[in-house]
Amino acid sequence: MSRKILILPGDGIGPEITREARRVLEACRDEGLDIALDEAPVGGAAIDESGVPLAPETLEKAKAADAILLGAVGGPKWDAMEDISKRPEKGLLALRKELGLFGNLRPALLYPQLVEASSLKPDVVSGLDIMIVRELTGGIYFGQPRGRDTHEDGTRYGYNTYVYDEHEIRRIGRVAFEMAQKRKKRLCSVDKANVLEVTMLWRDIMNELAPEYPDVELSHMYVDNAAMQLVRAPKQFDVIVTGNMFGDILSDAAAMLTGSIGMLPSASLNESGQGMYEPCHGSAPDIAGQGLANPLATILSIAMMLRYSLNAPAHADRIERAVGEVLDRNLRTADIAYPGTEQVSTEAMGEAVVAAF
Amino acid sequence: MSRKILILPGDGIGPEITREARRVLEACRDEGLDIALDEAPVGGAAIDESGVPLAPETLEKAKAADAILLGAVGGPKWDAMEDISKRPEKGLLALRKELGLFGNLRPALLYPQLVEASSLKPDVVSGLDIMIVRELTGGIYFGQPRGRDTHEDGTRYGYNTYVYDEHEIRRIGRVAFEMAQKRKKRLCSVDKANVLEVTMLWRDIMNELAPEYPDVELSHMYVDNAAMQLVRAPKQFDVIVTGNMFGDILSDAAAMLTGSIGMLPSASLNESGQGMYEPCHGSAPDIAGQGLANPLATILSIAMMLRYSLNAPAHADRIERAVGEVLDRNLRTADIAYPGTEQVSTEAMGEAVVAAF
Ligand SMILES: CC(C)[C@H](C(=O)O)[C@@H](O)C(=O)O
Ligand SMILES: CC(C)[C@H](C(=O)O)[C@@H](O)C(=O)O
Repeated sequence: MSRKILILPGDGIGPEITREARRVLEACRDEGLDIALDEAPVGGAAIDESGVPLAPETLEKAKAADAILLGAVGGPKWDAMEDISKRPEKGLLALRKELGLFGNLRPALLYPQLVEASSLKPDVVSGLDIMIVRELTGGIYFGQPRGRDTHEDGTRYGYNTYVYDEHEIRRIGRVAFEMAQKRKKRLCSVDKANVLEVTMLWRDIMNELAPEYPDVELSHMYVDNAAMQLVRAPKQFDVIVTGNMFGDILSDAAAMLTGSIGMLPSASLNESGQGMYEPCHGSAPDIAGQGLANPLATILSIAMMLRYSLNAPAHADRIERAVGEVLDRNLRTADIAYPGTEQVSTEAMGEAVVAAF
Repeated sequence: MSRKILILPGDGIGPEITREARRVLEACRDEGLDIALDEAPVGGAAIDESGVPLAPETLEKAKAADAILLGAVGGPKWDAMEDISKRPEKGLLALRKELGLFGNLRPALLYPQLVEASSLKPDVVSGLDIMIVRELTGGIYFGQPRGRDTHEDGTRYGYNTYVYDEHEIRRIGRVAFEMAQKRKKRLCSVDKANVLEVTMLWRDIMNELAPEYPDVELSHMYVDNAAMQLVRAPKQFDVIVTGNMFGDILSDAAAMLTGSIGMLPSASLNESGQGMYEPCHGSAPDIAGQGLANPLATILSIAMMLRYSLNAPAHADRIERAVGEVLDRNLRTADIAYPGTEQVSTEAMGEAVVAAF
């Protein structure tokens, strides 16, 4: 039976980058991968169509899919929405929560062909290969109570709750330890245990798990120091595990170390291996529709999908090799172009990958 | 009447760096500044002496002082403390809270003599001059309820509350707008208003303040993007204003962009101009007592103290000039030394500044 893949293009550059990734999926299908593709709107596009960022039928399709490819959501058009439950981002958050996609894998990998694109000195970042494991369905993103209110004297206040229980922490901890086992066997857990009780528990649980993974070296770092160390000497890290909010911040900083966030894919997995795959970058409304967007992060997200959800590692390897070949041929979208390389459009880049596949 | 300055050396390298800063204060006194100096333990040093990280008499002295110089607190010796209220950091947090030091100013300034020390490319960081204004007595650091507990089924959980009211936000907003007026008139407010209600209020209040400062250009940025932009193109920022937790993370990342966190001072001010001054770096227990620590961040904290709390800008200028002169003479502590410079001890560096004063 065909594996079902749901494509959610979303907003901004979402449609154009998922279009190129879809071609790569079709190329895989032509080469024997048994997949069925479907598409639906999410985020702002869904708001414009149906008034909500995630329509019930889209959620049903997502639940029924083996894997989801998401472009990006959000844009200034919908930023004025006062009601957080009606914003484009809510579509993304609801997908994560409803599908139980707690395990977010965000690699920060520097392609040797792109070392010049980094704002950091080449010796600081060359060979960089970090995997950030971010908890994605808990923490302050989803904690209750939350909201905005006024005190009796009329003073407005706002509040959110940062909460984790031991099961949530253990579950993401295991993903991270197992990831470290497949890599350089070093795991750094990031918290703020010197101030926040919830992260003291986080640290305790990581320590409790450690004996089950004797081949992995576990260390702990405060989040402020981690932000510093990522800038100072990022190659000290192998796998980083952290909560939803800290993971949001650190994974973006780590991605930017490579100078080419347009290259970085991500995976969000649930307990049964179902996953949502998306580029690390956002919807970039300022460049949407101009053929400037880099489709490679989305194409590489397909490779992650093949590896983690569809058990098709050979096809994944082929995609990653094809991307490497295209970079070797000096083809570059605007974000990673520099003098001496050949600047190509979003579409031309997608075509080049398919041709090299 | 003499202005009272309380020195709290704290832990790790705290004693050795405050010793050098004290000499600089004494040099100011010799040159006509009417000050009275006192010292007291804080953090781990206070725990060792009296069992608590901030003894009531130390808090009284702090309240009575015009300004406080703090070295740094914390270290592995006290990290095992399960009870957060008995950890060294609690001494620091209690000082901030009890004295109402809500306005934390953290400059990230690159000294032209040290551009090589940065892990970023020289053109990305040369001339860097960012001021981060961090709210320091509210947000998730102090929000109630907080703690660790177990559900009925025995599951452990931990929780903290991220809360701000409009007065707290307005107060720090004003500090930031005024700071921007004295600088390049650009203020970037950092939040996560696409997910967290408390930061939606933050954004609203900043927008409400903006018309009072028509000469300042206000922008907003999500915290994940801010972390990215600090790595990609930090010179786009003039003043950044944000809450306690985001400020902790971003100010450390920004400081590290300069490659010389051993150079960066900070100020924490209350509504009456009383302030606590401390280096941005931590207690660095691994190098304590070896003469390796850089005292310049602490010495430059004295300059901030003279400017913000003691109304002695001429003395502040002299200190900053003396530091510049010492760097021009190629004297460097271990953290900022590289081939071709002269490596000196903590003490020799302090002496050199006093001699150049
Ligand atoms: C769009 C936003 C809600 C989202 C997040 O904060 O998780 C994004 O920044 C991400 O990291 O995937
Ligand atoms: C020591 C710690 C409690 C403190 C903080 O998180 O505020 C420190 O990191 C800082 O930034 O001053």
